[in-house]
Amino acid sequence: MWLSPRLFALPVKASEKFAKYASFNPTPLSLKTLSAFGKDPTADIVQSTRFLKSELPVRFANILQELHLLPKKLLETPSASLVTSLYEESFLDLIDFEEKGLTAKDCDDFLVFLDKSFSRHGTVVEMMAAGVMEMRERHGEDPVVNNQLQYFLDRLFLMRISIRMLESQHLLVFGPELNKHHRFVGCIDQHCNVVHILRDAYDDAKLLCDHYYADSPEMNVSLVNDDDEKFILVDVNGVIELVYVPSHLYHILFELLKNAMRAVVEKGRLVNKDEFPPIQVLVVSGKHNVTIKLSDLGGGFPRSLNDQLFRYTYSTGGSRTGKTESPFSPSAGYAPIAGYGYGLPLSRLYARYLHGDLTLSGMEGHGTDAYVYLMRREADADEFLPVFNRTSARRYESVGIPIDDWIHRSPSHDSQQQASEGSPRAS
Amino acid sequence: MWLSPRLFALPVKASEKFAKYASFNPTPLSLKTLSAFGKDPTADIVQSTRFLKSELPVRFANILQELHLLPKKLLETPSASLVTSLYEESFLDLIDFEEKGLTAKDCDDFLVFLDKSFSRHGTVVEMMAAGVMEMRERHGEDPVVNNQLQYFLDRLFLMRISIRMLESQHLLVFGPELNKHHRFVGCIDQHCNVVHILRDAYDDAKLLCDHYYADSPEMNVSLVNDDDEKFILVDVNGVIELVYVPSHLYHILFELLKNAMRAVVEKGRLVNKDEFPPIQVLVVSGKHNVTIKLSDLGGGFPRSLNDQLFRYTYSTGGSRTGKTESPFSPSAGYAPIAGYGYGLPLSRLYARYLHGDLTLSGMEGHGTDAYVYLMRREADADEFLPVFNRTSARRYESVGIPIDDWIHRSPSHDSQQQASEGSPRAS
Repeated sequence: MWLSPRLFALPVKASEKFAKYASFNPTPLSLKTLSAFGKDPTADIVQSTRFLKSELPVRFANILQELHLLPKKLLETPSASLVTSLYEESFLDLIDFEEKGLTAKDCDDFLVFLDKSFSRHGTVVEMMAAGVMEMRERHGEDPVVNNQLQYFLDRLFLMRISIRMLESQHLLVFGPELNKHHRFVGCIDQHCNVVHILRDAYDDAKLLCDHYYADSPEMNVSLVNDDDEKFILVDVNGVIELVYVPSHLYHILFELLKNAMRAVVEKGRLVNKDEFPPIQVLVVSGKHNVTIKLSDLGGGFPRSLNDQLFRYTYSTGGSRTGKTESPFSPSAGYAPIAGYGYGLPLSRLYARYLHGDLTLSGMEGHGTDAYVYLMRREADADEFLPVFNRTSARRYESVGIPIDDWIHRSPSHDSQQQASEGSPRAS
Repeated sequence: MWLSPRLFALPVKASEKFAKYASFNPTPLSLKTLSAFGKDPTADIVQSTRFLKSELPVRFANILQELHLLPKKLLETPSASLVTSLYEESFLDLIDFEEKGLTAKDCDDFLVFLDKSFSRHGTVVEMMAAGVMEMRERHGEDPVVNNQLQYFLDRLFLMRISIRMLESQHLLVFGPELNKHHRFVGCIDQHCNVVHILRDAYDDAKLLCDHYYADSPEMNVSLVNDDDEKFILVDVNGVIELVYVPSHLYHILFELLKNAMRAVVEKGRLVNKDEFPPIQVLVVSGKHNVTIKLSDLGGGFPRSLNDQLFRYTYSTGGSRTGKTESPFSPSAGYAPIAGYGYGLPLSRLYARYLHGDLTLSGMEGHGTDAYVYLMRREADADEFLPVFNRTSARRYESVGIPIDDWIHRSPSHDSQQQASEGSPRAS
């Protein structure tokens, strides 16, 4: 096991504990488990504290193991090194609680720690993005490192989502500011209304869009409830609700609507049109999934860009239109994460966290369909978490990029030689 | 290098040649190269024969290497063993031509061989499907083998598409039955009209659908030409053409329309409706891609099924609706490949062969959008081919299924133990 100098320099006991917790798998919970516990009148802060005291160090230790395996040239940047120490600090704080009991005072202390930890990790995404940029400025592009980073950042950010979910669940249910909405269990809405969140996200994206372009497209929403078991296209009176975390869904929909609006308005400028075609949203409630499809006529993108759109190391600019200066860029003081090009991959993680997904289908020259998949039943909405093990460790070995097992560009593009003989290769 | 007993028993010379050709990479061609050669009045059968005499053995040897690495329990089935010997036979025939020159007689002999080889491999897909079923009947399910098979069959079938493309290109351009349509270069249509192929595929799928259900949904087609650079939704008079292989496009569209029709009619039965919502097709011509989107209201499928739909080892029945007895099943004497559940993965391979793609987005409880991506420019439509090397060889090592680096089901689903402590794991 690789320990950072900091953890290595600790008393033997702490590094033994790190080894112990890193050897456990995280325990994924479902939304059902989470909200059942939050609703149970007999459940108390002691139970929840006991669980978090053992589960959180497992999650921190698992992701720290991978953080320690990242290339030195990234870890040594001021920003990435700060992220490492924040995670180490939270882990060390947590194991201090091992010694303590579960008295009222202990539980209060734990609440204080959770609150501190929650704030401490508030800007981890931006810090990692800064670290990546610092590394690129100093060392240039490295495709091997880029691939490791893509793998790692998906895992770090997903683990972070999960840790913050557990923390805020405990803080909201047992913390001093008791949740006032009886509909909510912690941050879980028992009747999360998809259209309401769509409206909120649309209003906020519209504000941003109007601010930059002095105009914005409309949004039309249609609903389909499979319970009706008939061919229907539009149902304006229906309601689609599920048990979900509204802030996650808002994050996803705001990102997609923002992208769709920008695409439509920029295409509108290109074709000198003032009237924008509306963004069409279809919400379908089926037996297993709630699917939200957002269709825009903003010109789409070529198929070859699809994977790029979810890459953290794509783009200075990272916008769907490939512009280096995004109208929603950090320099303008808005939506800094979008400016780093992290908006889409993060939104996909929010969807995947509870066993959903997010996909994009571009029709280049026309528009884009975005699909958000959620699990309709809370019992199926399990946490989806990274685990540190041999398989993940191998992804950080610097073996270079493996030889491609597919070939797809005629050698004649590079050299006319060998074109009819095939090219011999090392084997 | 692993040689099958047959190749091993050959004179040293043949196995040396196998080693030589297997060490070369195939040479991907673009549609542009293929049709430029076919159109060139100075290009003659000698040049084409010379190229194929060196390129075909490379493609056969590359895929044979992987075939030889498949698990014994599959290779020993009568069907898979027949496939192996067909490929070995064609390889041995080919290296016989090394000795020969390029006289008119030699070129004629080569034509005869190509014709024979083309027929010989005509039912390889069905034979491999039978081999897989024979193996499963005898040895049951094996997830490790299933994963290897998914990897291998994608490669075998794609290599087969490429070999047949080169063979029929030569046969059509230089063979006895000269191509009558000046629009065509071999099997490449210089003005492949997407809507015409859609109509052909629709008519044939409708015939099949009417035969089983005595009814079928309509199809509406809309076109978008990006050259117009405006927001348009429907263009009934436009034409979208590209350089493409019409038989490949037909194969893809027939499969998708057949699936869409079946889904719509079966959903119609469920809801006791006689009027079916039409299948909506949108064809978009952009700068890089021609995108064909087929939307049906046949009830869709859950997100979790998406990958399964492209698996060769999914389903006895393999239909999108998950029925074991498909109305288009082989027992009924129609579309045997669809009955094996190979229709969708094969269609995706046809699209990928020339650098396109095929994706499905199901909205469970509502319908399905299928997207077919083609390269608009013939110079970008490169062949996409498997290569045998260390990376691919590793995929056939029986190391079992690697430990998953993600965890996604609460242990409490299986056992209540350890739920709050995490579960220790081997490392």
